[in-house]
Amino acid sequence: MLTFSEVSEHNTKDSCWVILYGKVYDVTGILDSHPGGTQAIIRWGGRDATEEFDMIHPSETLEEIEGSYLGTVEPQEQPIADSTPKEITQAPLSTLLNLDEMEVAATKVISKKAWGYYFSAADDKISKYFNTQVYRSILFRPRVFVDCRTCELETELLGHKVGLPIFVSPTAMARLGHPAGENGIAEGCRSFGCLQIIANNSSLSPEEIVANAPSTQIFGWQLYVQLNRQLSESMLARVNRLDRVKFIVLTLDAPVSGKREDDERINIQANTAASVSNQLFAGTDPSLTWVDTLRWLSQHTTKPIVLKGIQTHEDAILAAQYAPLVKGVVLSNHGGRSLDTAPPAVHTLLELQKYCPDVYDKVEVWVDGGIRRGTDAVKALCLGAKAVGIGRPALWGLAAGGVEGVERTLQILSDEMKTCMRLLGAKTVGDLGPQHVNTAILQQQIYGGPSHLVDETWGFMKGKL
Amino acid sequence: MLTFSEVSEHNTKDSCWVILYGKVYDVTGILDSHPGGTQAIIRWGGRDATEEFDMIHPSETLEEIEGSYLGTVEPQEQPIADSTPKEITQAPLSTLLNLDEMEVAATKVISKKAWGYYFSAADDKISKYFNTQVYRSILFRPRVFVDCRTCELETELLGHKVGLPIFVSPTAMARLGHPAGENGIAEGCRSFGCLQIIANNSSLSPEEIVANAPSTQIFGWQLYVQLNRQLSESMLARVNRLDRVKFIVLTLDAPVSGKREDDERINIQANTAASVSNQLFAGTDPSLTWVDTLRWLSQHTTKPIVLKGIQTHEDAILAAQYAPLVKGVVLSNHGGRSLDTAPPAVHTLLELQKYCPDVYDKVEVWVDGGIRRGTDAVKALCLGAKAVGIGRPALWGLAAGGVEGVERTLQILSDEMKTCMRLLGAKTVGDLGPQHVNTAILQQQIYGGPSHLVDETWGFMKGKL
Amino acid sequence: MLTFSEVSEHNTKDSCWVILYGKVYDVTGILDSHPGGTQAIIRWGGRDATEEFDMIHPSETLEEIEGSYLGTVEPQEQPIADSTPKEITQAPLSTLLNLDEMEVAATKVISKKAWGYYFSAADDKISKYFNTQVYRSILFRPRVFVDCRTCELETELLGHKVGLPIFVSPTAMARLGHPAGENGIAEGCRSFGCLQIIANNSSLSPEEIVANAPSTQIFGWQLYVQLNRQLSESMLARVNRLDRVKFIVLTLDAPVSGKREDDERINIQANTAASVSNQLFAGTDPSLTWVDTLRWLSQHTTKPIVLKGIQTHEDAILAAQYAPLVKGVVLSNHGGRSLDTAPPAVHTLLELQKYCPDVYDKVEVWVDGGIRRGTDAVKALCLGAKAVGIGRPALWGLAAGGVEGVERTLQILSDEMKTCMRLLGAKTVGDLGPQHVNTAILQQQIYGGPSHLVDETWGFMKGKL
Amino acid sequence: MLTFSEVSEHNTKDSCWVILYGKVYDVTGILDSHPGGTQAIIRWGGRDATEEFDMIHPSETLEEIEGSYLGTVEPQEQPIADSTPKEITQAPLSTLLNLDEMEVAATKVISKKAWGYYFSAADDKISKYFNTQVYRSILFRPRVFVDCRTCELETELLGHKVGLPIFVSPTAMARLGHPAGENGIAEGCRSFGCLQIIANNSSLSPEEIVANAPSTQIFGWQLYVQLNRQLSESMLARVNRLDRVKFIVLTLDAPVSGKREDDERINIQANTAASVSNQLFAGTDPSLTWVDTLRWLSQHTTKPIVLKGIQTHEDAILAAQYAPLVKGVVLSNHGGRSLDTAPPAVHTLLELQKYCPDVYDKVEVWVDGGIRRGTDAVKALCLGAKAVGIGRPALWGLAAGGVEGVERTLQILSDEMKTCMRLLGAKTVGDLGPQHVNTAILQQQIYGGPSHLVDETWGFMKGKL
Repeated sequence: MLTFSEVSEHNTKDSCWVILYGKVYDVTGILDSHPGGTQAIIRWGGRDATEEFDMIHPSETLEEIEGSYLGTVEPQEQPIADSTPKEITQAPLSTLLNLDEMEVAATKVISKKAWGYYFSAADDKISKYFNTQVYRSILFRPRVFVDCRTCELETELLGHKVGLPIFVSPTAMARLGHPAGENGIAEGCRSFGCLQIIANNSSLSPEEIVANAPSTQIFGWQLYVQLNRQLSESMLARVNRLDRVKFIVLTLDAPVSGKREDDERINIQANTAASVSNQLFAGTDPSLTWVDTLRWLSQHTTKPIVLKGIQTHEDAILAAQYAPLVKGVVLSNHGGRSLDTAPPAVHTLLELQKYCPDVYDKVEVWVDGGIRRGTDAVKALCLGAKAVGIGRPALWGLAAGGVEGVERTLQILSDEMKTCMRLLGAKTVGDLGPQHVNTAILQQQIYGGPSHLVDETWGFMKGKL
Repeated sequence: MLTFSEVSEHNTKDSCWVILYGKVYDVTGILDSHPGGTQAIIRWGGRDATEEFDMIHPSETLEEIEGSYLGTVEPQEQPIADSTPKEITQAPLSTLLNLDEMEVAATKVISKKAWGYYFSAADDKISKYFNTQVYRSILFRPRVFVDCRTCELETELLGHKVGLPIFVSPTAMARLGHPAGENGIAEGCRSFGCLQIIANNSSLSPEEIVANAPSTQIFGWQLYVQLNRQLSESMLARVNRLDRVKFIVLTLDAPVSGKREDDERINIQANTAASVSNQLFAGTDPSLTWVDTLRWLSQHTTKPIVLKGIQTHEDAILAAQYAPLVKGVVLSNHGGRSLDTAPPAVHTLLELQKYCPDVYDKVEVWVDGGIRRGTDAVKALCLGAKAVGIGRPALWGLAAGGVEGVERTLQILSDEMKTCMRLLGAKTVGDLGPQHVNTAILQQQIYGGPSHLVDETWGFMKGKL
Repeated sequence: MLTFSEVSEHNTKDSCWVILYGKVYDVTGILDSHPGGTQAIIRWGGRDATEEFDMIHPSETLEEIEGSYLGTVEPQEQPIADSTPKEITQAPLSTLLNLDEMEVAATKVISKKAWGYYFSAADDKISKYFNTQVYRSILFRPRVFVDCRTCELETELLGHKVGLPIFVSPTAMARLGHPAGENGIAEGCRSFGCLQIIANNSSLSPEEIVANAPSTQIFGWQLYVQLNRQLSESMLARVNRLDRVKFIVLTLDAPVSGKREDDERINIQANTAASVSNQLFAGTDPSLTWVDTLRWLSQHTTKPIVLKGIQTHEDAILAAQYAPLVKGVVLSNHGGRSLDTAPPAVHTLLELQKYCPDVYDKVEVWVDGGIRRGTDAVKALCLGAKAVGIGRPALWGLAAGGVEGVERTLQILSDEMKTCMRLLGAKTVGDLGPQHVNTAILQQQIYGGPSHLVDETWGFMKGKL
Repeated sequence: MLTFSEVSEHNTKDSCWVILYGKVYDVTGILDSHPGGTQAIIRWGGRDATEEFDMIHPSETLEEIEGSYLGTVEPQEQPIADSTPKEITQAPLSTLLNLDEMEVAATKVISKKAWGYYFSAADDKISKYFNTQVYRSILFRPRVFVDCRTCELETELLGHKVGLPIFVSPTAMARLGHPAGENGIAEGCRSFGCLQIIANNSSLSPEEIVANAPSTQIFGWQLYVQLNRQLSESMLARVNRLDRVKFIVLTLDAPVSGKREDDERINIQANTAASVSNQLFAGTDPSLTWVDTLRWLSQHTTKPIVLKGIQTHEDAILAAQYAPLVKGVVLSNHGGRSLDTAPPAVHTLLELQKYCPDVYDKVEVWVDGGIRRGTDAVKALCLGAKAVGIGRPALWGLAAGGVEGVERTLQILSDEMKTCMRLLGAKTVGDLGPQHVNTAILQQQIYGGPSHLVDETWGFMKGKL
């Protein structure tokens, strides 16, 4: 048994020990290859990193460092960490009437660190708020005298049946907000037949997350290509073996981290080395290109590919050229977390309608960002989206009430969507169309310039894959 | 005489007793057929439901359950209910200068429950507030050097003379706000020659409401078709016998209840089973369609039909096809209470001007929603409306001062309209026209897409009635 | 000598005595002919009306009732009236940097009654605030490399030289705000060569106001035609004799009073019978028409006529038909005091540019309403206005500091205008033009519909005068 | 040694003594030729002017008055001046995440006088705030699948290499905010290769500012032509000798000072004679014209000329006619400090694109005003600007932390720009173009009228130089 005093001396690049779950590990040898960056470990050198480690690493990570186990450490009283969720009695979930109230409830109970990571967005958060606001500037056109006894949300995504056209966007670090983590989201999705996209940086492993899923529950898996390609390739190999995972989502709108000041600010207050965002991006490869990356990816998986983060009609056209390898695109500005004043997905939806409506025939077009009401989701569907993703709302639901919080979130959205569709006179998702919305205000805001399809890229791309 | 203790044991679906006006009734037998739903009764099982019952049921309801009378109950001190109006001395009605001040005054004195039901609107109340705001973005074009000694508000609606082109929209549950209830509104309307539309869910019976009306006072009656058609048919039969009721208003924009969170929230606080809105909608039939429903209705009344809740030019065109059976339409988004971000009536007015101005020749076009000033009403008239409805303002007036409150409300509107017309250079309602308003800002907001008149519906409809 | 007790018994329509300056008058005989209405006197019956009387009547009024003098009244301590200006030491005028600060300073010292009358505007004050806001949405287009050593504000209005293209709009009741009253405004205007339009309801007589004016100082006189035409005709006869008064301003945008709630509210608090506005309008004739009224007016004066309150291009065209009898028009919505949501003058300016630019060749086009900065005034001049009126700012200046307050107000505006013109590259008022402003935002707001020139009016008008 | 009492008697135009650094000078002889105006000295007559003098004069000024030295003055305790920076411990610069936080930090520590001068802008500060806001209404169009490992900000301005396309706009009086003054800005710029334009009224001399610059660091020098041309000519002669100064910036948008009320208000409180702005403008020549001034200037320097303050496409066209004498223009509204509601530079950028895109081929087009984020700067570059200036941010940085504050400011901007470019898919400044931005909202705001190129000026100008 080692003493704290001994351990605390090993806090440099030359000798770095950390305490995890009461055991001491010599992690000097893995400093260079740590996906979250060298500094993210060294700042815990000589200290107990259990809490930090636990919330952001799947359990398998511990197995990978078993070889560097040194011994146990004498027990001692654990200081209350800043990131400990606050103990607050709050109103029952059933009294939370909408997704905003869910966020308020979650904010009361989660740690500052989790709040900083979840809430933050790029720069002045203009895109984050505009994402929601833009839906509110679309007006409905409700039709009357339509029999609305039945109203079905069921639909098909990439050929798979789902219970509703909502999916959970890939959001990392679910265990920061609630111990149930991504498993809690998966369980919440189960009863709704709701598609979940597992984040590349999920705090539980894909295997754990899909473990309890029945054959009717489907998942996607998000890929951030790592600088160390072997890491990505071995992850792909693992995911390929998971039957519940039906497609790979390659995220394109965040080759580097946006400037998320709320996250950074919390970090500064806690006097730690890097924000959650910056740690996550430490190992990400910013060199991806159409042909090379898609060729590489197609060599390492046979699952369909969905490209996430398309923000212009030009890139949507390019993506559609890769069908059927690419089966879908997600119009997204990363919840406003990447580039501030990037366009909301609904702008890009309208760009597609204007410049290249045939893209809708070649790939499925999904959107995310800013959805807070069932009406928001229905508007996106009216404008051609096949599915609508929620990111933060799933995390707020999880944080506010674990599995039940996720379920309450999906229940609210589902109820709101059905009420909305009934009042529009639509019985199924397929009934929804542009005739149900007035986008006059939005039409004045979208891009009106020429298309910029660079010739050489275009030529280079075609026939090369 | 029964004791409270005995009564309190009968609080289930199998045996349900309630106390009304000191008497005990066994209502087990009517649980299934209650228009407000089974749960709305069961939650009062074994308790004194007098106050709740009284405010929302016409007196005839008591007669219908006379057969289930069990006996009287021992008297006891009544606890002060949450829904008791507060005793507040307030400024004389004559010092309330406008409809907003009337609402403030009413809010001070009514119960939370009444406030929740009256004030609430769907979701984020965007449509509710936009309804008013949109009028403020229309500018007037006042003409000068016009003799304005006389200014007349008299007009004709569906062939009947009225004192002013304002009507009271069908608003349920008037007795929640003031014991005078719908009768108070009727009495307030009397001296102004103001048309009142009696709500399907009025808290006094149509017979009671029209009882004191002189032959010059006219009414409409609103129909929510019930799942149990016989209930609706027997109501129609009763209304057919009322000479003062000149037409039937079939409400179309609320086949299901919108999500009225203020109403739900009050309800949650009071720990009761369902919001006022949800109770009201429990028995409503959501399966109405153009041909079937209008055919059925035409078989049960010979009074003219007005369709309320038209929100698109397409549905206005369809409605006009049913003239002369259908004599009027009310452009309405249900005061923003049904679908949030549904268009304000004035948007639909402009859609009609743009797509199908001949509709105005075939049916009378009325509007409601958001009117708070005489200028708002005059703008609607300028844009082609024949009449302009007020819903909440009538209830706020009633709640603030009973009959005198309703009169004060109508007086304010009437005075404001006359001042406005004089300053525009218009002597009569007929003088008002589009030349009196500048709608440049609005024109940029209204729907600009194609008309969606579904062929089969169209074909199915024609010649089938 | 009469006692208060005796006097107080005479407070009805049958016998009405009032105390003025310590003397008792029997005013029963003039109740019916009082321009401010019968009630405005009766409510002072049996009481000391000195303060109220003094602030709103020229001194000559007292002479007119000399015949009804009854005797003096025993002196007694005067209660502090609500309308007494508050004694507040305030910052020197030179420290007030702009017109908004002048208003703040005035608000601190004037009586509630004066504030209510000056500050109030129709309904929700939308037009009042939009009047100012609309100027702020116009952007300048400053030209550089222009020699701006000299910058002259001198211009000609109706053929008369003035020191700057600003005029004081007719504003009644100046003595409510400061004992110097309209004389104070006249004296303030003197050193700037600023044109003043004397209000029909000025609290000093026209003769008093022009008494000290040098030959270079000019005035207009505003006419509200009275129901009792003889009153107006005798006033015109008096004004005709005043050489300093160069033209008659016939106000057209207020045939009846707008609904000025701030004014009414003060009035309700003071428990008096009618707001200042309502008293003023009591005797006004609302029956004016183009031909009849202009013919009548031309028979009673040979001074040029300016029509104030034009708000549409149609009425501007009509007015121009009466040139050269009519020499000018003032585009005005009465400071937002008449019809709420009436268009700001700058909208009408742009309407004229769009529909009938030749009007500018036939009559001088002036504007008022909302001017608070020199830049606002310069923008109006760029868009074709020959002169720009200020109403409330003159009153706030007077109230804040008497003559010096008016001078400070004009000095601020003059300085701001010169700085603005220098920075635009304009040496004289004549240099300013539409090339100096970008009105892109405004162009989207103005009326785009057809012109409504009613044929019969047109025909009737021509050749009839 | 003189006594204070003796000195204090010499405080008039006839005999004016001031104390500077403990020495007494008789400045009567230079009252008339003082660039800041006579009054600016007289108000310090008989008093110790050291602090005021020190902050706004280069050290050479003292040498110029050596001849009027009278003797030393008895030492005495110095009263704490209003303009003394407050002693406040504040957070480390590294915790300030963006330029707004830098301004907040600076505001806490600088004197009221400095704050008033730096923060103030014309009138209602509409242009000041619109300058920033307008960038936020431009949306990005990020391209994906672009290799963004490298991202370079290096570019060329007027043929000289710079480290980033940001320059420090000429801002006077840097020592008001921090004792390091303009030297601190120069040092901060050094490590970034950032171009600095030295203000005509810099509080250190050009020679001092460039003293430590390596050959790779470049400067511009701003000229305000003085009424006393010899002063300007001798300054030009000095600047001509400075090799580091690569061009002369002639400022055109401020022939007179705008009305900067915050500056004036501080001044009033301090009971001094004139605001900082007004002192600075006292000797400025407002008579500049295209031909005469450029001819004169070309006779006194051979360095390239950049015209600053162009706000219309017409003046941009005129400026381009003077190429290659004129090598660049800075689109600027002087940070909103000159004419309120003058257009933001980005409006003028779009005007140029619309009316005269060939101007971009003839002169370099730079902009300044409102830049607070790297994204703002990138947007300007996308729209054709070659460089983007920051004025206040450099001063706030300096005031908050001296050299390190300036460096932190540039670091933040540099980091934000790189993140932005990576997320757009641009590797170099040259890659940025209009395809990266959606300006739909802006396009509705810009000038749409005809070009006003006055013929005679045009003719006069050509061939005359």
